[in-house]
Amino acid sequence: MPLTMRPGCECCDLDLPADQVGAVVCSFECTFCSGCAEHLGRECPNCGGQLMPRPTRVGDALLRHPASVERIVGETPCPGRGYAGGGAPVQRLTRKPERGTGERAALDELLDEVLAGTLSTVVDGRPWCVPMLFARDGDRILLHGSTGAGALRQVAAGAPAALTVVSVDGLVVAHTTFESSANYRSAVVHGELVTLDDADREQALDVISERLVPGRTGEVRPMTRREQVATLAMALPITDGRWVLKARSGGPGDPDEETTAWTGVVPFRTVAGDPEPAPHALALGAPVPASVQGLVARWGR
Amino acid sequence: MPLTMRPGCECCDLDLPADQVGAVVCSFECTFCSGCAEHLGRECPNCGGQLMPRPTRVGDALLRHPASVERIVGETPCPGRGYAGGGAPVQRLTRKPERGTGERAALDELLDEVLAGTLSTVVDGRPWCVPMLFARDGDRILLHGSTGAGALRQVAAGAPAALTVVSVDGLVVAHTTFESSANYRSAVVHGELVTLDDADREQALDVISERLVPGRTGEVRPMTRREQVATLAMALPITDGRWVLKARSGGPGDPDEETTAWTGVVPFRTVAGDPEPAPHALALGAPVPASVQGLVARWGR
Repeated sequence: MPLTMRPGCECCDLDLPADQVGAVVCSFECTFCSGCAEHLGRECPNCGGQLMPRPTRVGDALLRHPASVERIVGETPCPGRGYAGGGAPVQRLTRKPERGTGERAALDELLDEVLAGTLSTVVDGRPWCVPMLFARDGDRILLHGSTGAGALRQVAAGAPAALTVVSVDGLVVAHTTFESSANYRSAVVHGELVTLDDADREQALDVISERLVPGRTGEVRPMTRREQVATLAMALPITDGRWVLKARSGGPGDPDEETTAWTGVVPFRTVAGDPEPAPHALALGAPVPASVQGLVARWGR
Repeated sequence: MPLTMRPGCECCDLDLPADQVGAVVCSFECTFCSGCAEHLGRECPNCGGQLMPRPTRVGDALLRHPASVERIVGETPCPGRGYAGGGAPVQRLTRKPERGTGERAALDELLDEVLAGTLSTVVDGRPWCVPMLFARDGDRILLHGSTGAGALRQVAAGAPAALTVVSVDGLVVAHTTFESSANYRSAVVHGELVTLDDADREQALDVISERLVPGRTGEVRPMTRREQVATLAMALPITDGRWVLKARSGGPGDPDEETTAWTGVVPFRTVAGDPEPAPHALALGAPVPASVQGLVARWGR
């Protein structure tokens, strides 16, 4: 009997393609990723048996004996990397563990590039979501808004929150719609928000301004006290084990069937257009400042 | 004594700028938007008194006597438009009621333009979020993914969900960082997902493919039965009262103080680049198909 080549890790649900290394199995074909297997002490939690690397199946053999599409995921919390300490389940990390190196740098790069994310929290058992501008400041994400904004008051009161950001980098056009996909980078950062007090707020608001239009704070007057107190500033810590990064890049795989279809990628990117002066600036004849020139140069065209 | 000109509706938290019409007050200056006032029968829920339009305060008068920044929002559920029928609170609509006409058309336009949204649900009292491609199909939003994806199983099981989409259309550079802002369009659609059965799934998957790369389904073979059963297709209904649309456009307001600062908008947009053929297409010499040509033309450059 050929191995059924189950498609994912029973613990963290990581994709485990049949033609790639990284899967381990017990003698009953309980299947795990190598990351979870490490956490499990390389012992199957179901049968107690040894977990060993699963042989790959490639090429014609895989075409003749396709991998199973039936997903099995255990009900018991996985002791592996998909769960935070203290037993609190967070979203499972489904990015390949072997790509772990540099993940934090990739997270930072994404957070520093995408302008708006979705802040989600829970109100009366239902998801409550609001898109927000944000700025990464080291190991925390700064958010701000009016002190009157409803959703912000909720999360500022310590409700569990998550900030989701995504960049669609391209559409992957394969030889079938099933194989077609998108290139993307996404992150979900979980945590509880901290409301910044007076001492921290002024600097935090400047960090947010500088992240959006670098150099601008040096061109205009400082915020007044009144402006500051009208603004709610919050921080979401970036905590190990409480964020998820996923990404896809590259083209479609080689077709596994006869086809004359074009395959490839249509890349997408965000660009800035020409700065549009407001009537005040036009009347004044004010030149486009360095901050705005830099912004346009940064985002290219 | 001048009116305090409170900044928002005590019921739905809608912004009520002092220099614009749309606010109503009772004799104690309890302040509401005209939409909520309608629902309240133009009677203040606090004092029982009459709610009457608040006079605006503009120009120099506003500079000398600025509006209050203190937000007051009542604890009792608002009977107005921010709440769905049946007492289930949904996110408050903070978009100006007078912009109500055409909101659904604007929602559809946004959903038809933005490629990826954030699907949020609740797992163990915490937000669970995943960015997803989607397609609007009339009064429903179609989503799909692998049958093995953890988050999808959660929402497919009927957990309350919300899809959030946002388009950052520009950065608004004002004469102060406080007044600076972003032009954007965003929507949050609340509901419970329905898992599509065999009869509906095939067409739904085609709708999603066509939304992403219009014309592609006509260029490749149909999905096989095996591909279909490996795909989870779901629908989120677009239900009146359970979605929120917000938008900002235009430039910064005229500065309310002496300044020589440049003010204006830096527009942003998403563009497609040149199609990048995969090795298979290069080897084949396959021409760029009409679907991909159309995609590039649609997104411009």
